[in-house]
This record gives sequence, structure tokens and C-alpha cells, in this order.
Amino acid sequence: MLIYIAGSGAMGCRFGAQLHEAGQEVILLDNWDDHINTIKENGLKISGDDERIVPMTIMKPQEANRVGDLIILFTKAMQLPAMLESIQGIMDSHTKVLCLLNGLGHEEVIKQYVPERSIIMGVTVWTAQLVGPGHVKLASTGSINIQSIDANEAEMGHKVAEILNEAKLNAIYDQDVIPSIWRKACVNGTMNSLCALLDCTIGQLFATEPGLQLVHEIIHEFVQVGQAEGVKLDEEAVTDYVMKTSVTAAHHYPSMHQDLVQNHRYTEIDFINGAVARIGDKHDIETPRCDVITQLIHTKEKILIEPK
Amino acid sequence: MLIYIAGSGAMGCRFGAQLHEAGQEVILLDNWDDHINTIKENGLKISGDDERIVPMTIMKPQEANRVGDLIILFTKAMQLPAMLESIQGIMDSHTKVLCLLNGLGHEEVIKQYVPERSIIMGVTVWTAQLVGPGHVKLASTGSINIQSIDANEAEMGHKVAEILNEAKLNAIYDQDVIPSIWRKACVNGTMNSLCALLDCTIGQLFATEPGLQLVHEIIHEFVQVGQAEGVKLDEEAVTDYVMKTSVTAAHHYPSMHQDLVQNHRYTEIDFINGAVARIGDKHDIETPRCDVITQLIHTKEKILIEPK
Repeated sequence: MLIYIAGSGAMGCRFGAQLHEAGQEVILLDNWDDHINTIKENGLKISGDDERIVPMTIMKPQEANRVGDLIILFTKAMQLPAMLESIQGIMDSHTKVLCLLNGLGHEEVIKQYVPERSIIMGVTVWTAQLVGPGHVKLASTGSINIQSIDANEAEMGHKVAEILNEAKLNAIYDQDVIPSIWRKACVNGTMNSLCALLDCTIGQLFATEPGLQLVHEIIHEFVQVGQAEGVKLDEEAVTDYVMKTSVTAAHHYPSMHQDLVQNHRYTEIDFINGAVARIGDKHDIETPRCDVITQLIHTKEKILIEPK
Repeated sequence: MLIYIAGSGAMGCRFGAQLHEAGQEVILLDNWDDHINTIKENGLKISGDDERIVPMTIMKPQEANRVGDLIILFTKAMQLPAMLESIQGIMDSHTKVLCLLNGLGHEEVIKQYVPERSIIMGVTVWTAQLVGPGHVKLASTGSINIQSIDANEAEMGHKVAEILNEAKLNAIYDQDVIPSIWRKACVNGTMNSLCALLDCTIGQLFATEPGLQLVHEIIHEFVQVGQAEGVKLDEEAVTDYVMKTSVTAAHHYPSMHQDLVQNHRYTEIDFINGAVARIGDKHDIETPRCDVITQLIHTKEKILIEPK
């Protein structure tokens, strides 16, 4: 079985390495030259719980030319359309496409390139950290929830879950994955955007009374908009999930902080708080917190990434 | 004539020194020990356009015991009630009280301590910078607009304007000072709060398209709320004023940035964006930008000033 990882950052490398070690043929796709060259020369370096070097095949998306059996989408949200554009040649009618991106609204983008019956949506709480080109740090454990978006294609989704489980990736076939995707987006829409904006750890944010109030108000906006969109979300359960995550991750700077503050890169805000603002508009639901936070993150992006 | 400066930070020192040099008897009041001791020992050091040492009398508010002819209020907004509380003993029925604080809503606080006919409200575009204890840096020029809040007491206000003008402080007796106070609050409510939040200069903020959009939306909230409050504000004129100020001050970090980011001190946000949010509530006007920005600044205060 030929599996492509389309977007081989920290998470893509974790999934690629574990699938490779489980005996699958895996090709990493990425656009970062240093990362590609380092892995080609030295293999993928994994540090953390179980240090090792994994020899991996990696190339640019446009260099791939064999049709894949499974493509796992793991780009940053804003790179998804360009990635789908460049991998048209390695998909045919039997290729399954699993989306594990953070954020909301990717399904609609993927449908423009992939037939609905081949699409599997998913969400994962695995983590990984990119230390440098060709080097990821892996610690702790995680799981994945996935679901075929075409109800008639559940079997295909179950097969993909099996493949992931052979690689010890703890996949569950979920009868209703969309609420889980929204729930994770809500974690990102509270701690990621606020920590990136306020330059603090998750624990620092949640220890303040006004920060915690903002978190609750943002959750409320996510839940209201999700419910209007037909997603089964329970505000108390989502809040409970966000609070539990904040405790586990208290000492961490979330990924959006790493992107924006530490590395001066564009963020996924338009697919998190920005998506809730857009979907809210559609349903005439006001989302002042998501609106303003999206604007502020975009302003901070411009200041840090495109200084005048 | 005995003039007290109640709150002798950078601006209080500028006004105190210029009034002293114009021949008035001036007593600076402040609570910062190092500042008081340095001025007592060495005089007030002024650097910038016209470097000099000015011998000044300075003491704690509770140490002052002679009734003043004029008291100029120049505290940080949140210190105003405590200052008014401690200077009760140096006010009698003839003492005039001029308020030159930044922000909105101070009139109501002062009225609790001072008879209406003795109150003069004002706003100034003079600037000053506190370099360290006993040392201020003064550059460029400025002006003051003032008005007695009791229309029958205009003459008293004119007399205070004269005293300020003898000290070259360019005071104008304004027939309608409240719009000028709101206009300056709007400058603070755009550039001060956003630059403190985003850790940038005024020029960096105004050079970004999303930052500029936020500025316009905040101005709109200030103007709508001000108008509901009966203040004559023209959105185009206020915008024009904010834009002009942003050009002059492009390379500066505004005072709220100095307070919060540079010195980890509490900000005046509750008297700027926070005041607009509160007054908006009273009139059922939504002010999502002022609401969220106030919450975010308070969160950043807690993170920087009271770390857990």
C-alpha cells in the first residue's frame, strides 16, 4: 500500500514514520528544501520518548508521480488548496483522502478536488514538535477519530482506521466526527489565538480571571455557531474538554504562538476563530470575540511578518 | 498664588516646573519615594530641548497642609479617587481644581469631592517623558483646552488660563471642552490600547491594513457612544485628528505601552476603551471592539503584573 503524507511538518513526520515502521510504503511530501535535503541525506531524526533515525522517502508534491492508495492531508490550513492542486496526478478513483488538518471548513475545499465518496474527515490529539529540518520530537500518546463523509463508504473508513491502528496511532471510527473536529477547533480558538496574541503559556492565560472569562465567551460563540450549522455540541462538555486540555498543556506555548511569536509565520486564524466569525455571519449570529481576535491576530501577523 | 500639582509624573513635573519658573509658588505632590527624595536632594532634572535643574518643593499628598489656590490633577486615572481623598485638607471654597487626566468619566469622580463651581475640565496635547526618579525629558510644544464646568464660573476658568499662559503652556478657554476630551480619549483608545496589546509602535500599527480597519471601527464606537451621551463629535473630524496624530507620533510607543509592556504597570484602559464600553451599555449601543480590547488588556495586565 502506498501512503502519501501531504504536508510533512511535525505531525506529518510522526504519522509517516509510524506507518513506515508498521511496514507501509510511505512517501512524505513537503515544500521545505532544508527539511527535504536533511531527510534525504540523514533520514528523519526522532528524539523524545524513543530516539531513532528513520530512513524516509521525501519529495516535493509536484515530483510525486505514482498513484497513491491513501493520502493523509497534514498541511497548514492555508496551504491546503495549493497542496490539493499539486497532487492531482497521484489521485485516481480508488485513492482515499484523509484530512487531519486543524480548523474548520476544510471539507468544502477538499470536495473541490476529491470525489465525496473518497474523503475521510478526522481529528487527532497526537502531538509532535518540529525541532529543526529533518528532526522531530515525539512525546506522550494520542488518538485519532475518523469518519467517511459519505455514509455508504463507512467500510473504506474502517479500513483506513485499521491501517492507522497497525501503526499504533489509536484510530477510532467515529459515527459522528464533526463535533470532535469542532471541539478541537474550540481548543485552538481559545488557547492558541489568545496565547499568540498575549504572548503567554496556556497556564498563564487560564490563571487570570479576565482571560478565563474570554475563554468562556469564545466557547459560547463556537457552540452557538456550531449548533446553528447543525453540529451536535454541548457547551458544558466542550468547556469541560477545553479546561482539561488547559491543565494538561499548562506549561506549553500553543502552536499558533510558535508560528506567530516565535517564528513570525502566518497563522491558521482564518480557519479557527475567523471561520466561526464567517459561519456566524451566515446565520446572523454575532461573534464579537472571534471577530476582534481574528483582526488582532492578522494585525500582529502584518507587524511581525511584513514590517514596514 | 499657591499651586499644587496632584500627581507629579512626567506631565505634572512639566507643568509644575513651567509654573514655578513663571513665578508661582508650586508644590508637587506624589507618592513615589525615590522620585520625592531625588527632587528634594537634587532638584528636578529636565533634559531635552532646554536642559536645566529646577529646584522644586515636593511632598506626599498627606503631608500638604496649606490650602491651595489652584490644584492641578495629573494622576493616573485609577489613582484619582485616592488622591482626592488625601488632599481634602488643602481645599477650601476658593480652591480651583483643574483636571488634566487622560480618559473619560473623571468629572463624576471629582464632583464627589469638589463643588461643581470650582471644577475646571481640561485636555492637553503637551507631552513629557519620565526618564527616572527626579528626571523628565521635555521636547516639542503643546497646548491646553480648559473650561469651567459651571457656565457661571467662566471667569474663574479664564483666570486659570491666564496663569497657565504666563507659564507658556498655551491654554485656551474653550466654550466646549468635552468634545476635545473625547477626541483625545479616542486617540488613546486606538493607538494606546492597540500598541500595548500588539507590542508595536504607532507607525507599525497604522501601516497594517487590518490594524487600520480596527482603528476606524474603534473610532466609530467612540463617536456613537459619545453622541448618545450628548457630546458633539463628528466622525470624520475625529478620524482626521487620529490619523494626523498617528503620523506625528509614528515612531513612538504610546504611554500605555510604556506602562504595560515596558514597566509592567496597570493601565488606564477602564477610563478609555472600558469607559466607552460602560457608557455604551447604558445607551444600549454595542461596542464589541472596546469590550474585547478592554478584556484583553486586563488579561495582559494580570499575566505581566501578577504572574502565577
